[in-house]
Amino acid sequence: MIESIPLSTSTNLRSCLDQLGTLLGDRLGFGQALREQHSHGESWHPGALPDAVCFPRSTEEVCEIVKVCASHSVPLIPFGAGTSLEGNVHADRGGVCVDLSQMNTIVDVHTEDFDCQVQAGVTRRQLNEYLRDTGLFFPVDPGADATIGGMASTRASGTNAVRYGTMRENVLGLTVVTANGKAMKVGTRARKSSAGYDLKSLFVGAEGTLGIITEVTLRLYPMPEAMSAAVVNFPDVESATKAAITTIQFGIPIARVELMDKQYMGAVNGYSKTDYLERDTLFLEFHGTEAWVAEQAEQFGEIAAEFGGGDFQWAVKEEDRRKLWRARHNAYYAGLAMSPNGKGYVTDVCVPISRLSESIEAVRKDLAETNLVSPILGHVGDGNFHLTIFIDTDDAESLKDAEQLNLRLVKRAIEMGGTCTGEHGVGSGKLKSMKLEHDQESLELMRVLKQTLDPQNIFNPGKVVSI
Amino acid sequence: MIESIPLSTSTNLRSCLDQLGTLLGDRLGFGQALREQHSHGESWHPGALPDAVCFPRSTEEVCEIVKVCASHSVPLIPFGAGTSLEGNVHADRGGVCVDLSQMNTIVDVHTEDFDCQVQAGVTRRQLNEYLRDTGLFFPVDPGADATIGGMASTRASGTNAVRYGTMRENVLGLTVVTANGKAMKVGTRARKSSAGYDLKSLFVGAEGTLGIITEVTLRLYPMPEAMSAAVVNFPDVESATKAAITTIQFGIPIARVELMDKQYMGAVNGYSKTDYLERDTLFLEFHGTEAWVAEQAEQFGEIAAEFGGGDFQWAVKEEDRRKLWRARHNAYYAGLAMSPNGKGYVTDVCVPISRLSESIEAVRKDLAETNLVSPILGHVGDGNFHLTIFIDTDDAESLKDAEQLNLRLVKRAIEMGGTCTGEHGVGSGKLKSMKLEHDQESLELMRVLKQTLDPQNIFNPGKVVSI
Repeated sequence: MIESIPLSTSTNLRSCLDQLGTLLGDRLGFGQALREQHSHGESWHPGALPDAVCFPRSTEEVCEIVKVCASHSVPLIPFGAGTSLEGNVHADRGGVCVDLSQMNTIVDVHTEDFDCQVQAGVTRRQLNEYLRDTGLFFPVDPGADATIGGMASTRASGTNAVRYGTMRENVLGLTVVTANGKAMKVGTRARKSSAGYDLKSLFVGAEGTLGIITEVTLRLYPMPEAMSAAVVNFPDVESATKAAITTIQFGIPIARVELMDKQYMGAVNGYSKTDYLERDTLFLEFHGTEAWVAEQAEQFGEIAAEFGGGDFQWAVKEEDRRKLWRARHNAYYAGLAMSPNGKGYVTDVCVPISRLSESIEAVRKDLAETNLVSPILGHVGDGNFHLTIFIDTDDAESLKDAEQLNLRLVKRAIEMGGTCTGEHGVGSGKLKSMKLEHDQESLELMRVLKQTLDPQNIFNPGKVVSI
Repeated sequence: MIESIPLSTSTNLRSCLDQLGTLLGDRLGFGQALREQHSHGESWHPGALPDAVCFPRSTEEVCEIVKVCASHSVPLIPFGAGTSLEGNVHADRGGVCVDLSQMNTIVDVHTEDFDCQVQAGVTRRQLNEYLRDTGLFFPVDPGADATIGGMASTRASGTNAVRYGTMRENVLGLTVVTANGKAMKVGTRARKSSAGYDLKSLFVGAEGTLGIITEVTLRLYPMPEAMSAAVVNFPDVESATKAAITTIQFGIPIARVELMDKQYMGAVNGYSKTDYLERDTLFLEFHGTEAWVAEQAEQFGEIAAEFGGGDFQWAVKEEDRRKLWRARHNAYYAGLAMSPNGKGYVTDVCVPISRLSESIEAVRKDLAETNLVSPILGHVGDGNFHLTIFIDTDDAESLKDAEQLNLRLVKRAIEMGGTCTGEHGVGSGKLKSMKLEHDQESLELMRVLKQTLDPQNIFNPGKVVSI
């Protein structure tokens, strides 16, 4: 059944939605529940409702949607699985949410070339399930079952990035619909190219502010012959971090190395019904041939012992490894479940690895001084870590405290040569931080790029760049 | 001694050079020999003289040079070691060549973080010699002793890219002087970031057409515990290529895998005084721990045997490996030395690896049909290969034949999902190919980016983008 456009809608918006309705029929919706569902990601940031939600099924339809919205100057907010954390998909200025979940076709897999082409709405789990029999896998793994389009847009990474890189390194090509409603193909299936400006890198991480990604060509990797995961406890966060840093500095090509502090371990046990020791812990994984995985694990074991690591729990069987990583992946939700009102103030920074321990210690000191409580979790192999500060985010005072702590965290990360966000993106949540990280010239160039590619400021307005 | 500005110079250019002279003293030159030296790269493309050559020593001086040239609308051509191959540094529209060779300071090495910051004029050999005692190395290796700034500008890669990536993956940050004469820092020392548009990727591979790179922050890698190189002969190019492809498809993390056909092997023996068998050959290298290198080599040995590979010559000792790779690196010069007039028409393409064998066979057939002669050499692990067609490049007829062969090569590569240049860049030589590879929208966006960042078209005009 085709819904009718709400009466309160302005004439311009009504005309825009009218045209979209003609184009999409019942794949354009205005219901409150639907709009609420598309008003936010998974973080504390208060939602902002789009005026309508549409569900295109092809690049051509996205082109038509952009043309209609552009001709009415109505904002377009691309939406994947809604798992983002910095207010990246909030319709702060209203407009039409473009939900790409029905564009979930795996277009092509080239097993011999280790690449595939997918529509933007394919999720990473869907892709990996599809790939299971090919002997290949797509390693970028932010935890949540995000869409590939969303992951490309946020330049996502996660647990495997230390070995396999982030979306920046693993997107070979994109189809993008730009402000004039035309589709553009950028990149090729070649492993490398020097053929002109790196347009794909301009859209990877742009959070839908420069165009809408509708298809993605990805690098794939051969499933390792052997994989071995482990959970190791340490006397304190510093020792765990230092063991991770030393592992990286020794050049051991570890596939994952994740820190969870004892608070997080408690939350995980409660949430995932596991019985891990509630101590500061590293979750690890090694990939390679049987012999080589054994060698890496032995080398790591020696390093861990140096830093007081113990109680190794190995998981070699597929189902044990899955259980271990499911527990790790649910950590964010476990953390939220521990929080008094089920919410938390989330942030992430990334620093050069030699400063990681100092950076974590400093924020722990801050936490102790401010009476704020937050477990710490990190992709420590990359120097990237997350906080989930347990506050009532509806309470202005608490929110202010958390924001100030976050600002100190970000400032220190930048002073250390790091970045205000390793993987969550800017959205609206890190807009202020952008001014701390980038110089005037860079901010101005970002603004100019935004204005050049999106002169009407209709693509996810108010995100990434302050306009 | 400060040279005087040539009398023939126009009033505007004279005023510009006058101001530059005041700024730089004898680091601004007009001599014919100096201008000739800066009029070309290492390829057949006829040189184009700049009006003057200057040698800045700091980012601040580059800012001043850009301001002076911008106020007179005089072109600026950044120049590294002059090793480029597609007419990338030719002063096609005159102007001032900005030779960055005196900006050769290694600013900082963070051994614990595996990164360093260098001025753009540092060469890759200089960097690796400097790093020798740190246990780290910078792997990107295009063969020639190019500058890091030049390599970043051309998005260079080379023999190690199959394992360590290209300049795209290994540049963490840049200092760039833009058209308003201001310096901008883009990127951080963090391993990953989602903090806004990926500005550094816009300048990596832009060949100096969007600004002048003056400093580069690079990823470094731990020197492997063990390295082992080998030369293996095959019955034909197809078998060699297929052995390389299979190695990649088996996920063996080979560090280098280079094809040289028998013609090249003959040239190399003549030039480098080596005594390799003159057969179609792979040059390989494995990196890792002792045990793991042995395992990789064994796995490769089995694959090579399947494709008729034999006569393995192993080089494990540092000096033997160096000799082997020196021979490989000199292949281009060896090829030129074989050419009747010491010149050759050079080109490179990159295709998905499953199409590599077919792509090489097709161009060999073309060569046979056209009576053109060219040895073939390739970074086959990436699907990238090069031709050096032996023609008298001063002969219009021969040049036309070579150009037509090149065009067919490029067209096929693109049809196969590949790119018109894997690593040589666009310069002026691949401008036509850009129109075959990119769609209208992409070409238009590149043009818009160029016009937005360089409204006067003074940065290396006529390269990469047709304006």
